[in-house]
Amino acid sequence: MTEFFNVLAPADAFEVLRKHLRPLDAEAVDTTAALGRVTAEEVRSPEPLPAFPRSTMDGYSVRAADTFGATEGLPAYLEMVGQVPMGRPASVSVSTGQAAVAYTGGMLAEGADAVVMVEQTQKIDDKTIEVMRPVAPGENVVQVGEDVREDDHVLSAGHLLRPQDIGGLLALGIDRVSVGRRPRVAIVSTGDELVPPGDTLGPGQIRDINTFTLSGQIQEAGGTPLPSGLIRDDFKEQRSAAIEALRGSDILVFSAGSSVSNRDMTADVLGSLGEPGILVHGISIRPGKPTIVAMLDGKPAIGLPGNPVSAMVVFDLLVRPTIFALSGMASPPEPPAAQARLIQNIASVAGREDYVPVRLVREKGELCAEPVLGKSNLIFTLIRSQGIVKVPLDSGGLYAGETVSVRLF
Amino acid sequence: MTEFFNVLAPADAFEVLRKHLRPLDAEAVDTTAALGRVTAEEVRSPEPLPAFPRSTMDGYSVRAADTFGATEGLPAYLEMVGQVPMGRPASVSVSTGQAAVAYTGGMLAEGADAVVMVEQTQKIDDKTIEVMRPVAPGENVVQVGEDVREDDHVLSAGHLLRPQDIGGLLALGIDRVSVGRRPRVAIVSTGDELVPPGDTLGPGQIRDINTFTLSGQIQEAGGTPLPSGLIRDDFKEQRSAAIEALRGSDILVFSAGSSVSNRDMTADVLGSLGEPGILVHGISIRPGKPTIVAMLDGKPAIGLPGNPVSAMVVFDLLVRPTIFALSGMASPPEPPAAQARLIQNIASVAGREDYVPVRLVREKGELCAEPVLGKSNLIFTLIRSQGIVKVPLDSGGLYAGETVSVRLF
Repeated sequence: MTEFFNVLAPADAFEVLRKHLRPLDAEAVDTTAALGRVTAEEVRSPEPLPAFPRSTMDGYSVRAADTFGATEGLPAYLEMVGQVPMGRPASVSVSTGQAAVAYTGGMLAEGADAVVMVEQTQKIDDKTIEVMRPVAPGENVVQVGEDVREDDHVLSAGHLLRPQDIGGLLALGIDRVSVGRRPRVAIVSTGDELVPPGDTLGPGQIRDINTFTLSGQIQEAGGTPLPSGLIRDDFKEQRSAAIEALRGSDILVFSAGSSVSNRDMTADVLGSLGEPGILVHGISIRPGKPTIVAMLDGKPAIGLPGNPVSAMVVFDLLVRPTIFALSGMASPPEPPAAQARLIQNIASVAGREDYVPVRLVREKGELCAEPVLGKSNLIFTLIRSQGIVKVPLDSGGLYAGETVSVRLF
Repeated sequence: MTEFFNVLAPADAFEVLRKHLRPLDAEAVDTTAALGRVTAEEVRSPEPLPAFPRSTMDGYSVRAADTFGATEGLPAYLEMVGQVPMGRPASVSVSTGQAAVAYTGGMLAEGADAVVMVEQTQKIDDKTIEVMRPVAPGENVVQVGEDVREDDHVLSAGHLLRPQDIGGLLALGIDRVSVGRRPRVAIVSTGDELVPPGDTLGPGQIRDINTFTLSGQIQEAGGTPLPSGLIRDDFKEQRSAAIEALRGSDILVFSAGSSVSNRDMTADVLGSLGEPGILVHGISIRPGKPTIVAMLDGKPAIGLPGNPVSAMVVFDLLVRPTIFALSGMASPPEPPAAQARLIQNIASVAGREDYVPVRLVREKGELCAEPVLGKSNLIFTLIRSQGIVKVPLDSGGLYAGETVSVRLF
């Protein structure tokens, strides 16, 4: 029987792959549709923001010097000369001793350099206000370019676009943005025992679920899943399916057949499809040891174990960061995590990373993690849990009472 | 001038609203398309999983008793009687002293109760194997119903469907699932100064960005954004726009005009549209104080401040949980957060919550949070930051060196 050789820690296995990964081509998209996309180049500001001095308060545009020394007992009296309506040019201008109504977000009157809040004034008549507190020049005003100056650096290349980034780009009139193409991830699911989920099961048959769990994970990582259907345990069929899948995708995920028994032909299939071929076969992890990492003429391919728990765990460690790398992300987000106190020992074996599903429960206000029992290949262990705890490579286990980082899952 | 009255802490304001919120109607969707949706009712298992005893290893189906006492020195000899191919009924049966080839995930041979791993056997000839280690009954076997028994509780009502949940449902043949309708959130953006992002700016004009930042936040919370276009500062126009928007949506978000000056008519508009009307006007928060919370004949409406930072912060505290509640979520996810050490004092005022954008930086391996300077209404403070730190209501500020929870944003 063939043995696993070259068994690497998961992070090392990804490191081997990472060296081969290059961001996909850029494409221009409407900024309004760019949420979750990754910038392909630096963005600089074509204009200042704001483009005119804006009041941050409802009140009066004034010359600050006219208010110096004003108090409630000895207010400054200013002549009202009109208002600057929202969204209009400042058709009114204030000279010494004058004021004009200003609205939050509106333009200052010509000649004004500060805004007095309405709360610090009193209307005497239609033509006169009292100002009861001095304002400094620039007070209650956002200056031209105070948010962003013209030609300022706005976003770096490799930036994941959030709602506020979309807003910032649009505020500057940038309505198209160059982003990395979304990685297309083909899923080839193999196994004579598999039937599509809609089918009735015959004896010995099970429903294919990896196509769908992996599709979900691909979507959550920002990729586009391309399911290739179910392929039988036949070398020629698998090879043609893989060739076809590679043609239309940027990443190939092969589910099942990644171990070393006679039935496991994924390594042979992938190994025959391009250079340099298989980079890693076997990683020091449980569940998920029989994992294959390959580069096939510039495209990454990952052979995942067939059992759905292993497939999901290994996806998270290898395929997710591969999608991020092809998206061009400069600093991929940390997986969502929470700190929790372990309420039960977890036994493990030094020399491999264990990934253990846990339930999160609150005990006396403290977040606690309780291992979910069950064989490591039962999909419902992941359904009954809210996260996964990693037992490090060099550890024999974790002790009840330890604080652990739970990868929310 | 009107004053704010009834100013509540943000959490208390949501509590007032929450009492009025009911999950939307359920709808049945294909399980394969249900990622991110929320179950509307409990799901129980129509069948056991697995439906037949499955081997977890490549090896041989045996009667465990035949291997008792086997060692490398004194192996048990078993007669090979065939194999159980993947995805086929167990057409072969083993009696005492017999074994049949078993594959990982495949069915056990009739009469077998355990699987010996191939690594613990030796092939003598085509008809005979040596077993060098005893197996217990049930060893390397997943029993019928071991993952899920028939009629087991599978998922509770109000459960947010993750990739593994989709897989679990499909594994059981559940290819349609009843989920809460996705909340449709109408956005009415108001202000005479606003122009659509594609337009060239005239003096005093700015581009509408709240429609797009809020759309992004709505999508991220699982809602469907329905932008209503730009509406002028005119009571009648705003009222008709609000009526129209409410008609086709489940939640109404009104951007700007939520303060108390003459130009701020949102409270009057919303107050005129249904019962019980305005619940809260003003929350003790910076930025974001001028916020309106209303229930209009069964539909929640939130009036957000016009400045984009306030709008996003208040959205996160009030609209996001409203979308979750209408989705029927039983335990809404905690906002993503990270612990970091503050590297600069943040001054605040007791009696209000301050939300301060921070940049996350690593210093000597430790995650640190650095406040992003700039007036609280500059959208680029949120673009230059990776998260937000809350200064609690009863605190005068936070000190450099403190560990703070950063809401990743």
